[in-house]
Amino acid sequence: MPQFDWERPLADLRELAELTGGPDGARRLAWSEDWRTAREWLLGKLAETDATVERDVAGNLWATIEGASDKVVVVGSHIDAVPHGGWLDGCLGLLAALEILRGHKGETPAVTLKLIDWADEEGARFGRSLLGSSAAAGTLDPDAVRHLKDAQGISLPDALAENGVDLDTMGEAGLPDIAAYLELHIEQGPRLEELGKPAAAVIGCYGVERHAITFTGKASHAGSTPMHLRHDAFLAAARFGLAARESAKERGGVATIGTVTAGPGIPTIINEHCEVTLDQRAFTPEQLRDMLADVKRAADEIAAEEGVEVEWKRIWQIDPIPFDERLVDLAAQAISEVTGDDDPPRLPSGALHDAAEIARRAPTVMVFSSSTDGVSHSPREDTPEKDLRAALRAYGRLYELTAGMISAP
Amino acid sequence: MPQFDWERPLADLRELAELTGGPDGARRLAWSEDWRTAREWLLGKLAETDATVERDVAGNLWATIEGASDKVVVVGSHIDAVPHGGWLDGCLGLLAALEILRGHKGETPAVTLKLIDWADEEGARFGRSLLGSSAAAGTLDPDAVRHLKDAQGISLPDALAENGVDLDTMGEAGLPDIAAYLELHIEQGPRLEELGKPAAAVIGCYGVERHAITFTGKASHAGSTPMHLRHDAFLAAARFGLAARESAKERGGVATIGTVTAGPGIPTIINEHCEVTLDQRAFTPEQLRDMLADVKRAADEIAAEEGVEVEWKRIWQIDPIPFDERLVDLAAQAISEVTGDDDPPRLPSGALHDAAEIARRAPTVMVFSSSTDGVSHSPREDTPEKDLRAALRAYGRLYELTAGMISAP
Repeated sequence: MPQFDWERPLADLRELAELTGGPDGARRLAWSEDWRTAREWLLGKLAETDATVERDVAGNLWATIEGASDKVVVVGSHIDAVPHGGWLDGCLGLLAALEILRGHKGETPAVTLKLIDWADEEGARFGRSLLGSSAAAGTLDPDAVRHLKDAQGISLPDALAENGVDLDTMGEAGLPDIAAYLELHIEQGPRLEELGKPAAAVIGCYGVERHAITFTGKASHAGSTPMHLRHDAFLAAARFGLAARESAKERGGVATIGTVTAGPGIPTIINEHCEVTLDQRAFTPEQLRDMLADVKRAADEIAAEEGVEVEWKRIWQIDPIPFDERLVDLAAQAISEVTGDDDPPRLPSGALHDAAEIARRAPTVMVFSSSTDGVSHSPREDTPEKDLRAALRAYGRLYELTAGMISAP
Repeated sequence: MPQFDWERPLADLRELAELTGGPDGARRLAWSEDWRTAREWLLGKLAETDATVERDVAGNLWATIEGASDKVVVVGSHIDAVPHGGWLDGCLGLLAALEILRGHKGETPAVTLKLIDWADEEGARFGRSLLGSSAAAGTLDPDAVRHLKDAQGISLPDALAENGVDLDTMGEAGLPDIAAYLELHIEQGPRLEELGKPAAAVIGCYGVERHAITFTGKASHAGSTPMHLRHDAFLAAARFGLAARESAKERGGVATIGTVTAGPGIPTIINEHCEVTLDQRAFTPEQLRDMLADVKRAADEIAAEEGVEVEWKRIWQIDPIPFDERLVDLAAQAISEVTGDDDPPRLPSGALHDAAEIARRAPTVMVFSSSTDGVSHSPREDTPEKDLRAALRAYGRLYELTAGMISAP
C-alpha cells in the first residue's frame, strides 16, 4: 500500500511560492525563464521518486512508474500560472500528483502511474489556453495560433522554439492509452465556500460560446436629440447584457459581458457604436444552444426596438464535456470517506481545464477544493488549510479507489 | 427701411466654406490660424457696411451702427467651429446678422445695431464652451480654465495670448446695455425635420447636469462564478443607463450616457468597475432637479440590488434659462409671417448657445432652422435650402419687429 503524507504537498506549495512567487503573485508564465525554473524544481522533486521522466514534443512533462498492470492512471495538472497568479492554481493538483508518486517509493503500483505537467494551460502569454493538452489530444490547429504574439511582440512559434518545441510537430505528441485521468484543482469560484464544503466531485466542464457583438446606432447631440428620436448603441448593448443575464439565470448557465467599447465616447454625444464580448457557458449542449438562441433573439428584438444594427462575430466555441460517471461516483465516495459528508457536492466546472481536453479521449474526473472568496488569477487566491487538507486526502483516496477498480480482474 | 437680400448670406456661407472648409468639414477651430483667416474674411465683409468694428478684451468681435435710438439690438452668433464641423453651425447666424448690417447701408437704423461674433463658442479645442460670451457676461472663472490644454499640449492661456487675449483680464470685457439679443442657429437636432417645419421660435436653453458615476463591483471568473454570486459593475451601469433614459422620458428632458469605461475589460472576467458619464438636460429647474433625484435614487437601488458601490462626481452644471417671452412671441410671429404657418413651433434648445449666457443679462431669443437628419458637428451637417431661406427671412423679420417694438415711443 502506498504511504501518502498530505502535509508534504502543502510544504511543496510554499516552497514553490517562495521560489517563483512572492507578494506580487506567481511568476510562472508558460515558456518563460521562471516557468523553466519551476520545472527544474519539479524535476528535482521527481528525481527523489521511482519515476522515469520524459518530455513529449508538445512540451508536456510525463513521469512514469510502471505498475503491476499496464493500465494507465494519469495524475497531474499544470505548473504554469497567469502573471500575478495565485499559489494554488495548477500547482495544487500537480503537487498532489507528486505526492502520489512519492507514496509509491520502493513499491510497484497496482496500475501504471503517470504524472503529467501540462505545458501552457493558462494561455496567459499568447491567449491560447490548454495548448499542451490540446496538442496531445490532437485538437490543436497550428495555423490557428501561429500568428499569436505576446505583449513583447515575441511570436508563439519563437517562444516554443526557445523551449525546444516545434509548433508544427507538437500535435504529434499523442496520448498514452489512459484508463483514468484524475486532476485536483481549486474551484476558482465561490460555490463551495457558499455551501460551506471543502471539496467537490466535478461532473464535467461547461461548454463555451464566446462572441463579439457590435451594435451600431447613430451619433447625435446629447442636448438636441429628443429621447424618442435616438438610436443609442450603448443602451442597446446595456439591454443586451441584461438579456444575456436573464437567459443564463433561466437556463442554469452563466453569461458575462467582459469587454465594452462605446464610441465616440464623448459626454455630449449619443454613442454610435458599442462592441461587447459575450461569454456564455453551460453544462449541456442543449443549455448552451438555448442560451445562444435566447440572446440572438434578444439582440434582434433590441436592435429592432432601438433602431440599431447588430453584428455577430464568433470568437471561440467549445462543447461541454461531461466527466466519466463511474469516476465521478468514486470522487464523491472519496470525498465522503474523508469528510464524513454523506452527500458531497457534485459541481460542473465553469472554468476550463486540461481535463476538458483529456475527457474527450479518456475517462476523466476532477476534484475541486474550495476557493476563498472565489478569487483566482490573483495574489489573493487562497483556500483554507483545512479545506486543502481535505481535498488532498480525498484526491489520494480517489486515486486508490480508481487504481483498485482498474486493476481489479 | 432696410433692404435685405437673403440670397447673400447663402452665397457668403458657400464662400466661407470654400475658404475654411472642404470635404473634411469646417476648419475654424477657435484661436487657430484658420479661425483668424475666417475672421479676416468677416472683417472684409464688415468693411463694406457702415459699421464700426472693435474687438473686446475677451476676443469677441463687435460691429456697431449707431441708430436713431441708443437702445441696442444685438444680432450675431459665432464663426468658430468644431474640427470637421459643418458649414452652418454658427456661421449661419453670423452671416444672417451681417446681412442685417448690410441692409442698413446708407441709412440710420431705428435702434443701435450691433453684430457680435462670439469667440470660442464651441470649446472644441480646450473643452470649455461659451468662453467669449461667458467672459463678457461675467460668469467666467479664469482659475477654472487656466489648466486646460489642447491636444498638442498648448495651454489655453498661451493660445489666448497668441490671439492678444489675456485670460486674467478677459472677464472685464463686459456687455453693453442690450435691449434685445437675437440669434439664428441651426437646430442641430431632428425635431423640426420630424415636424416638417423649416423654423422654430426657441423658448430657452435646457439646463445641464453632467456627472461621472463609477460602479465598483467584484472581478471574478466568467466561468466559475454562478450568476447569483456576481457583483457585475457593467450590468449595474447598464441598468443605470436605462433608468436614466426612463426618467428623462417621464420628466420630458433628455439623458445620455456618453463615455463608458469597464474594467478589467477581459472577455473571461466579470467587470469590477464601470465608469460612465451622464448628461441630463431639461427646460425647467424642477424637471432637472427631479431627473437628478430619479437617477440618484435609481443608482442607490441598483447598487444595493447588485451588491456594488456607486460614486458620483459632478462634472458640470448650468441652470436652464428661458428666453424673453415677448421676443419669443415676436419670433413666432415673424416665422408665421414668412411661412404662413399659424402655429409655428416653439421649441427649447437642448444644445447650449451663447444666447444662454446673454439671456441671463438681457432679453434674448433665438430662431432655429431645421437640420437635415438632425446631424451637426459633422461635414454631413446640412439644412434644405428652402428651410434656410425661410429661417433667414424669419430672422430678418424678427429683427424688424424687435427694432420696431424697442424704438416705439
